[in-house]
Amino acid sequence: MEFKVLLSEKIKEVEEIIYDYLPEEEGKQALVMEAMNYSVRAGGKRLRPLFIMEFSRLFGGNIDEAKPFMAAMECIHTYSLVHDDLPEMDNDELRRGMPTTHIKYGQAVAVLAGDALLNYAYEIVAGAIINSSYPYKSAIAFDILSRYAGIYGMIGGQTVDVMSVNGINDKETLDFIYELKTGALIKASMMIGALLGGADEEQLLVVESIADKVGMAFQIQDDILDVTSSTDELGKPVLSDDKNNKFTYVSLLGLEDAGEYVSVLSEAAIKDLRELGMESEFLEELINYLINRKN
Amino acid sequence: MEFKVLLSEKIKEVEEIIYDYLPEEEGKQALVMEAMNYSVRAGGKRLRPLFIMEFSRLFGGNIDEAKPFMAAMECIHTYSLVHDDLPEMDNDELRRGMPTTHIKYGQAVAVLAGDALLNYAYEIVAGAIINSSYPYKSAIAFDILSRYAGIYGMIGGQTVDVMSVNGINDKETLDFIYELKTGALIKASMMIGALLGGADEEQLLVVESIADKVGMAFQIQDDILDVTSSTDELGKPVLSDDKNNKFTYVSLLGLEDAGEYVSVLSEAAIKDLRELGMESEFLEELINYLINRKN
Repeated sequence: MEFKVLLSEKIKEVEEIIYDYLPEEEGKQALVMEAMNYSVRAGGKRLRPLFIMEFSRLFGGNIDEAKPFMAAMECIHTYSLVHDDLPEMDNDELRRGMPTTHIKYGQAVAVLAGDALLNYAYEIVAGAIINSSYPYKSAIAFDILSRYAGIYGMIGGQTVDVMSVNGINDKETLDFIYELKTGALIKASMMIGALLGGADEEQLLVVESIADKVGMAFQIQDDILDVTSSTDELGKPVLSDDKNNKFTYVSLLGLEDAGEYVSVLSEAAIKDLRELGMESEFLEELINYLINRKN
Repeated sequence: MEFKVLLSEKIKEVEEIIYDYLPEEEGKQALVMEAMNYSVRAGGKRLRPLFIMEFSRLFGGNIDEAKPFMAAMECIHTYSLVHDDLPEMDNDELRRGMPTTHIKYGQAVAVLAGDALLNYAYEIVAGAIINSSYPYKSAIAFDILSRYAGIYGMIGGQTVDVMSVNGINDKETLDFIYELKTGALIKASMMIGALLGGADEEQLLVVESIADKVGMAFQIQDDILDVTSSTDELGKPVLSDDKNNKFTYVSLLGLEDAGEYVSVLSEAAIKDLRELGMESEFLEELINYLINRKN
């Protein structure tokens, strides 16, 4: 099957799994559930839950144990976007071609919907641990998820990103932001998938190394697309980094060398992946696809 | 020992436990940790972790199992205040006599610090489950915490509260807001304490009934204090409900009957408490104190 067809089928599978966990829009507080569901259903690449699913399968795991973590991960990723789009943060009105949550529901509901999605992720995880056949392993996955989502992970990266507007111009800080803001949840996804799929400690180290490279490549590709893509392709305004005076890998290396660096990282990730000696054709193609994507 | 002295000693004990879990202010993202710690250390009655500790002791439990949940609960309560104070929400500049988090650190950092506190609560819980002598019981406590903090609990109540400004004038909606917005975390605190302390299912039902009454009485007392207290005593502006045109139990019943209702609820709660047949003198005095408090 052609990769693109396979990918869209897998994304559909991921979305069906995630949507199963979304709350009913009921009760006096239905509005916040509606805003949560709007935000999650707005689309996106579903990359993080896809990584959980595929790394779980890579190691031969039954994905039933991974499903609640796929939903929780997408809830956490989505909450971070909802809050990131707020006027006091990036002030974005459009995401994936649709009005952002605060444009559609107002700022107060957007703050609450973000909080609700973050908390709901852990409601799903709590149910998963209680009902798991391997509760200790699920608790470890919970530990990974919460750490990589927090101040030592994604929120830490976002904090430095927010502090750095108009400010930074050094590679060290840029790397810190990329590793944490985007890289942390990508790494958590691959590691949770691998862990629940049955990877041993040595294999988890290889997965961690793959995640570092893919996370960085993915973020640099974002910088490149902000310069080279069109609003139509990207579903959000282009040149927004330029508008916001943001220091990126494109300003650091130039467009060409940034592209070259993405290729180098991806090839190294694929090499690591092959070292695991598993049937990893889809994941290899996925990594290649990510660095050639147009949105 | 006089109750007030005992209470202040217990609050000190609670604060020492909570502060032990707060993050070091380190790394490039130290600002968000500073804002988290500022928000938690700003004070308050520490009622929720105190309830966890005292209900755990009531049933004879070792409070070591309860400690991480005390810290997590206070982090969740604090995040809800930080986000509630934001301009798009209640727009409060003063809390407990100190500048609110967004006044001190700016709105973007306040959003992130709130997110960080919510997530950090679950980082603490994840560690607690992995290291617990009774991981299944800790997982149940995690389940209770996450459900009562979310859309079926506190966030649900806040959503209806936000939707209701200038809008509601019916008891049913008011009760919904009070049960969820304030009542949910108070209930979760008592139940988690009792559960970790060793309460059986029948005892947990009694605790739930106590929590319903105390939570409601506590919130109505807040309404009363908003009218009768001074800014100095309360540490935040008085008559803010009036300013915001808020429908409260004071507007519903009048000041005198609202006070009477608080007494009735508290007495019923104390009656339930005595039915448990435990040594509950401190908790009885605490409930009495809460309805006679001036802030």
